[in-house]
Amino acid sequence: MMLKDKERTSDLISSDRVEGTAVFGADGDKIGNVQEMLIEKIGGQVTDVVISVGSFLGMGGELHSLPWSKFSYDTDLEGYKLDVTEDQLRKAPAFKQADRETAHDRDYQTTVYEYWQVPTYW
Amino acid sequence: MMLKDKERTSDLISSDRVEGTAVFGADGDKIGNVQEMLIEKIGGQVTDVVISVGSFLGMGGELHSLPWSKFSYDTDLEGYKLDVTEDQLRKAPAFKQADRETAHDRDYQTTVYEYWQVPTYW
Repeated sequence: MMLKDKERTSDLISSDRVEGTAVFGADGDKIGNVQEMLIEKIGGQVTDVVISVGSFLGMGGELHSLPWSKFSYDTDLEGYKLDVTEDQLRKAPAFKQADRETAHDRDYQTTVYEYWQVPTYW
Repeated sequence: MMLKDKERTSDLISSDRVEGTAVFGADGDKIGNVQEMLIEKIGGQVTDVVISVGSFLGMGGELHSLPWSKFSYDTDLEGYKLDVTEDQLRKAPAFKQADRETAHDRDYQTTVYEYWQVPTYW
């Protein structure tokens, strides 16, 4: 997805342009794309990011949601760096594209936060 | 826009389903819809919300962006309540649908935050 010039230099991204943002591994290699971000309705904070890594790691188009704290925005790469290894990601909780509502499920979220050893926000 | 059952009960909203969320005035009357949210790339916090109010207030399809702090989520209404009067909104900074990049412009944002008397976040 191409961003318009103004967005390239902006520190803000529109909610409808989140999809497709590049995700890089700790080594700087591209490992996937953002599919969606989950936003707390009340606080307005992104809590989880759903990423697709299938075409890169040969994982059959599975989606992962990861806690926001695992991502850091890299202005040079114009995408998010993920401080996890490929192996960690392969074994992480995942769901299929058709089951995208899974990301909103509290039980699934609990599994995710436990796996990534990130304190839950709820 | 209809939300699926799981999202109705979730405290999270997907970035690609933000659009269309109802916006209500202080009196509970619907005044418009969310067009997009602006998310800080680094911090993951929603900073501004772009709303369309044209068809409700006869304002010719203009868009307004307002600071996040002006919105509060109402779980009963399943939408955002905006603590502003119709008159305030009519006179507020606005832009046309074709100029949506305006919401990302720092000068425009400055005007918005001054108008609504909200401290800037940057």
